[in-house]
Formats: sequence, structure tokens, C-alpha cells
Amino acid sequence: MIRIGVDAMGGDYAPRSVVEGSILATLESQGKYQVVLVGDKKRIEEEFKQIEMDIPDIEIVNASQVIEMNDPPVESLKKKRDSSISVITRCLGKGEFDGIVSAGNTGAFMASTLLSSGKIEGVIRPTIGSYMPGEKNISFILDVGANSNCKPAHLLQFGIMGSIFVSTMLKRKNPKVGLLSIGEESSKGNELTIESYKLFEKSCLNFIGNIEGGDIFKGKADVIVCDGFVGNIILKFTESIIDMVKEKLKVIMGNNFITKLGILLVKPALQKMSYLYDYQEYGGVPLLGVKGTAIIGHGGSSSKAIKNAILEAYRMIRENINGKIAEKLSSYVEVESEK
Amino acid sequence: MIRIGVDAMGGDYAPRSVVEGSILATLESQGKYQVVLVGDKKRIEEEFKQIEMDIPDIEIVNASQVIEMNDPPVESLKKKRDSSISVITRCLGKGEFDGIVSAGNTGAFMASTLLSSGKIEGVIRPTIGSYMPGEKNISFILDVGANSNCKPAHLLQFGIMGSIFVSTMLKRKNPKVGLLSIGEESSKGNELTIESYKLFEKSCLNFIGNIEGGDIFKGKADVIVCDGFVGNIILKFTESIIDMVKEKLKVIMGNNFITKLGILLVKPALQKMSYLYDYQEYGGVPLLGVKGTAIIGHGGSSSKAIKNAILEAYRMIRENINGKIAEKLSSYVEVESEK
Repeated sequence: MIRIGVDAMGGDYAPRSVVEGSILATLESQGKYQVVLVGDKKRIEEEFKQIEMDIPDIEIVNASQVIEMNDPPVESLKKKRDSSISVITRCLGKGEFDGIVSAGNTGAFMASTLLSSGKIEGVIRPTIGSYMPGEKNISFILDVGANSNCKPAHLLQFGIMGSIFVSTMLKRKNPKVGLLSIGEESSKGNELTIESYKLFEKSCLNFIGNIEGGDIFKGKADVIVCDGFVGNIILKFTESIIDMVKEKLKVIMGNNFITKLGILLVKPALQKMSYLYDYQEYGGVPLLGVKGTAIIGHGGSSSKAIKNAILEAYRMIRENINGKIAEKLSSYVEVESEK
Repeated sequence: MIRIGVDAMGGDYAPRSVVEGSILATLESQGKYQVVLVGDKKRIEEEFKQIEMDIPDIEIVNASQVIEMNDPPVESLKKKRDSSISVITRCLGKGEFDGIVSAGNTGAFMASTLLSSGKIEGVIRPTIGSYMPGEKNISFILDVGANSNCKPAHLLQFGIMGSIFVSTMLKRKNPKVGLLSIGEESSKGNELTIESYKLFEKSCLNFIGNIEGGDIFKGKADVIVCDGFVGNIILKFTESIIDMVKEKLKVIMGNNFITKLGILLVKPALQKMSYLYDYQEYGGVPLLGVKGTAIIGHGGSSSKAIKNAILEAYRMIRENINGKIAEKLSSYVEVESEK
């Protein structure tokens, strides 16, 4: 059976939210996957006790230390060898888990996963991708933070991995891949995107050319490719939009009774809309290009976000995303070198 | 008297919207500035005829050619020496205008302004800045498209010019300057921002450190500094938000009567909110660092946007933004070289 390790100590509301999320995910598992909580066994069991229901079958693997959210990743990994992040990634590397989820220190989780499991053959740089809401349907943007400084070959691989992810997970055939830039023409952009454009053009991808900032929400591309610096800014900017809209509406409606009544009536619709921007719904973002499936949760993950992250990890394993990446990148490298 | 040249042929709705905007601006001028329309004299006069009111005193300077929105900037400037953009920028260079406004081909307008007027002494790279809405108040972001590839010294100068602009135009003392990056620590970011951080720290600016994508709308910084690639993507992304919100609300409310009633009641508030994101309200974005004041209008500028762009140009001239930039940058260079 598929085994998914979950970092019980990671996230602002851990271990409570993680324990609850793991229970929710297990209740939906239908015996298809086994959730394993990794962390302070005593604290996890205390959480179990406080939950007034029959706890489904969840294993616990003890880890005596915790890497805090603001700890420096590399140093803390060296010092805290029995931290939940160290243990969970080690288990993934040894094949004891098929996938792992952590809402803890992203840098440490990423570095440790990479160290323990290694890259998929042919991958130059692993990448983090994220779903992105859109006017009509969601798209997938990558890289969103793993690689601040990129070369054209990296972007091309992000495009390939993103394309595989979208065609598999969102069931879109031959997904449209767009390069995020500042003008449609191939000559527009910065040094990185202008060079990358040439690689994309020659590639096996369904490349639709450059897309601009205004196209992100339009769903022009299924896969939006950019470096991790740009992608991370866009991702965090997007997350803040719903706050901005709420805050502005509050200020604008002031003490106007009619507007307040209107807001009340519109609330369910607004709520539905805010889901679209809400990372809790997507659960987490996949780290692509490493052996073994890893989902990075948002620091503020609720139990629902954790549940969704576990489900996402399960689907990625079931759909063999990593196998498909390995197949594509090795064949791609061959084709390229034949030219 | 201050003379402001307006490109009558620039923009999707030119010359109609430009003529109307120029009339509106002249009606508000109280004799403080003179608007001069530059373009096909016959067509402008035809527009005048169709407007059923007394046309206020607006001069016309004839220009027989038009650079279209999608023309290649440099080539078309060479070929069309009597285009409205060529003529208007030449007049600025000769001192016949104190400021100019164009909603036409941005690349051509920028290049021609720079060529005709030259840079302010001490400026390495002119920059385009833009107002940015926020939860509590607006901020100013630059560069938003003039410089796709930047060096740390460029970003520092953008910070200085932005700081002068905001303290003068928005009357904010000692504006907070933030470097747009992907983490608060000075070590986070890409090569450009990490190096730039060191320069900003040593500078005369009220530097508050790195800000992240999620801080843009929070108003954490009065001046947000980034390279023109990132800034342009953010700017266009922001412009698309209101479309996205409208579209989503439409889909979500569907045929629900209660929600529709709610929307009706909330509409005035939504309208007010959408103004905040609406470039028509800001009129245009200033090109900073060139001798002579230039405002770049959005291609889709309405008559209101043109009017607001002219008013913005007038305020920039009245407040002597360029003089302040020259003073600061020359003194700054001296201080730096003393170190």
C-alpha cells in the first residue's frame, strides 16, 4: 500500500492541524494509502486523546526535534538530525514512504528532500509549481521559489515538468505552455526569457509563446513558466488579493446600511470566490524533479489544507508523475543531443 | 506659462479621446498651463467641429505622420520624422514644451523623448514608475518596463527617483523604500536584489529592507523598487485583477436572485473599488530621469485618462520633480565618491 509521511510538527498550527488533517485524509483513504505521522510521539498521542472520535489507523514515527519556521535551513539540518523534517525525508529516501508532506520550514524541507532522495535522472534543477486561479479555469505556474537565479535550460525543464503535471493531474491534453515575459514578441523580455524563447520554440512542448502579466488570470496558458524569483512574487501577490478586496470593501461600505445588506446577500458568492484564491483548497505545492513525491504545505495550513496536501500527494503517486518526468527528460535529452 | 504638448494621434481611441481629454484639462487649467495638441491638424479640427460646445483655447501643431501602436519603435522613428511622436518630443527637446503626454507607441515615445531631451545629469537609466493601489493607501512602484535587465546601481537610482516623486507628489515625508524580493532577510532574493540590498543599506534612503509579493498591497513601502521585467509583470497583473473579480462574481452568482440583488446593492461600492485599480484614474505613468516631463498614457486611455495625464504632467512641472532629481543625484554621486 502507498505510504505517505506527514510532518506532524510543521506549520503555524502544528501539531493540532496536522493531526486533524491526517485523520480527515485517512477517513477518505478507502484503504488506498496509509498516513504516517512523523514527530513528537507523545504530543501526537495527546492530540489524539483530545479528539472526541474514534481515531482511524494512523501510524506514528517518533522524531525528538523540531526545526522551527525561521531556523536557517542548512545549519539546522546539520544540528537537528532527529528533527521531524530530517526523519521524514530520510524515510522517503530509504523508500519507507512513497510521498511526504510538510508545512514546516520550506527551505529545510526542500534541501533535506533533495539530499535524501536525489534528483530524477535528467533533471538539472528541481522546481516548485503552484496552481493559479483564473477567470475560467486554473493554470499551473512554476518555478515559484526553488530557483531564484535560472538559466534557459532550467526554464525549459520547468516547462516540461509542468506540462507533464498538468496533462496528468488536470487531465488536459497537450497543455499550452507560456513563457512569462513583458511582450508577446520573441524579442521582448529580459536576457533570460529571450534566450529561453529559442529553446522553447525548438522543444516538444505545445509552446504558445510569451504571455504577459495581464494574461496570468486569463488562462491563456495551462502552464506558466518563469524563474523562481518572479514566480514567488506572483504567488504571494495572488494570495494577498483576497485580503485586499475584503479590506477595501469594508472601508468603502463604511456605515452604509444598503451596502452592508448587499454584502450580506453577496457573502456566499464572495466566499466561493475566495476559495479560488485560497491555498487551503489546493493543500500545498509539489516539489517536482526529485525522486519520491514531496508536497510543501503553506505555513498557515489548516487541517483542511493538510488533508488536501495528503490527497494531492496520493494522486501524484498514483499517477506516477515522477516516472513520467524521468521518461520524458531522458528521452528529451537524447533527442536534443541527436540534433 | 507652462506649455504641455499632447500627442493627438496616440492611443486606441485617438484622436477623439485625446481631443476630448485636452478640452477637459484646459477647462480645469485656470490659465496655469496651455495645452498644445500635436498631430494631423485637419483631423483634430474635424474632431473640434463635432463637439457641441465652445472649444477652449487649445493650440495645434501639425504632424503629418503617425507611428502605429505595433510599429517597431526605432525603425519607425527613423522613417517617420514627421510623426506626432517625433514632433512632440522634438518640441520638448527644444524647450517649446515643458511637458508632454502620449498614449501612443510606448517604446517609440520613450526612445524619442530620451533622444531629444537627454538624461538628467547623474542619471544612469531613466525609469518608468506607476502608482499601485493598496489596502490603506497607494504606493509607487518602479521600474515598470523601461529596463528589463538591471544592475544594482540602477535599482538604487530608481529608489532615489521614486522617493523624490512620492515625497513631492504624494506629500509623504521620508517615504519608506522597499526592495521587492522573495524573503525579508538580506540574503534572500536573486543575484540582483542581494547585491542591491547592500547599496540600499548604505544609501541616504529610508530603506525598510526587502518586501515580498504579499506586501505590495499592504502598503508596507511607499516606494517599491524592482527591475522593469518584474515591475511590468506586476503592473499588468494588477490591471487584470478587477476583470477577474468581475468575471468570477458573474459566474458564481449565476441565476441566484438573492445574490443578484446583493450585487445590485453592492455595486456602488464595487465601482468605487474598481477606480482604485483603474489606470484611467491615474492618467498615465511618468518617465523619470529625462530632461523635460513626459507622461506615458495607457493605450486604452479614455478622455478622462488623458485629462488626468495632463494634470499629472502639470503637477510634476509645477513641483519641479526633475530639478529635485538633478539636485539629489548630483549631490548623491559626490557623497558616494567621497567614501
